[in-house]
Amino acid sequence: MKLLEEKIRREGRILHGSVLKVSSFLNHQMDPELIMQLGDEFARRFANDQVSKILTIESSGIALALAAGVALRVPVVFAKKHRSSNVFGEVYQTTVHSYTHDTDYNIVVESEFLRSGDRILLVDDFLANGKALEGLLELVQQAGAEVVGAGIAIEKGFQEGGSLLRQKGLRIESLAIVEKMEGSDIFFRNT
Amino acid sequence: MKLLEEKIRREGRILHGSVLKVSSFLNHQMDPELIMQLGDEFARRFANDQVSKILTIESSGIALALAAGVALRVPVVFAKKHRSSNVFGEVYQTTVHSYTHDTDYNIVVESEFLRSGDRILLVDDFLANGKALEGLLELVQQAGAEVVGAGIAIEKGFQEGGSLLRQKGLRIESLAIVEKMEGSDIFFRNT
Repeated sequence: MKLLEEKIRREGRILHGSVLKVSSFLNHQMDPELIMQLGDEFARRFANDQVSKILTIESSGIALALAAGVALRVPVVFAKKHRSSNVFGEVYQTTVHSYTHDTDYNIVVESEFLRSGDRILLVDDFLANGKALEGLLELVQQAGAEVVGAGIAIEKGFQEGGSLLRQKGLRIESLAIVEKMEGSDIFFRNT
Repeated sequence: MKLLEEKIRREGRILHGSVLKVSSFLNHQMDPELIMQLGDEFARRFANDQVSKILTIESSGIALALAAGVALRVPVVFAKKHRSSNVFGEVYQTTVHSYTHDTDYNIVVESEFLRSGDRILLVDDFLANGKALEGLLELVQQAGAEVVGAGIAIEKGFQEGGSLLRQKGLRIESLAIVEKMEGSDIFFRNT
């Protein structure tokens, strides 16, 4: 998606060689108009897939998932990273490893919000090693629901998550795929 | 706001006497259409206040803040609850006490996203004891920016945060104020 690639080129910053910082518009400060446009694009790509619900993970996925939910007119659920005192009763949960923070964390969804028969679109801001997506897939599986695919804003094509998950049969629609980063230059895969 | 009060009456659940659970539409599962309408209402109430930026706190405030940002056409920033490895350089930060989780946590905003001269609208899903709002006010003060007010979805009128902060001069626009909860009945303040 050209619009997103141009925004990344203009405002993205590369740290430590492999960290792409897009916190000026995507996951710390957010550009509402752009985020709604990304949501529209997810909706366009999954328009014929009878999506019944969107599932994301706090915090950076929430805005994009909401935007997609507005466009597809379906509810949005975000998995919580810790069991809070307000999460009670039956839950689906699994453990995810974060390479960014070098730690494991639990993700939890109350079971009433994922049902067998649901057709789930996963949404997240980044896809790199794929651990967060794998965790969300596991929650959907526990619920006996079906995943129609994943909508990702920025995929790091030089990390293995995308290819591993596509090999397993997951449909992934990434709006920008970064092929490599050299110095301050960012190269995108033609999509 | 009648629309929100009716939704709370229909779907809200009272736990342990004082916890109001609205996770079916506001802060775990989200009703995108409703959330955009709440954002429109915040925008209507602060339409003449030259808001230049919206500030909220992860995770439950993000969707509402985005909706308000869409309507007001201004950027949205969410304070992060921990210093992540991608937050670097100059930051504003302060400590907030959570009664829900009975713990203290840090909230952090990179300093480039709050500037002196900014006119900040604070947005959050709940106002109870007011500690989260106080933390956000502190961050804005550190930046030398100005707060035009706070847009809150649900205020617990029987807790002290709202009255304490109004006494200090903060303009608070709460879309629903719960006066008391008895058994399974929820009573709203006339606003």
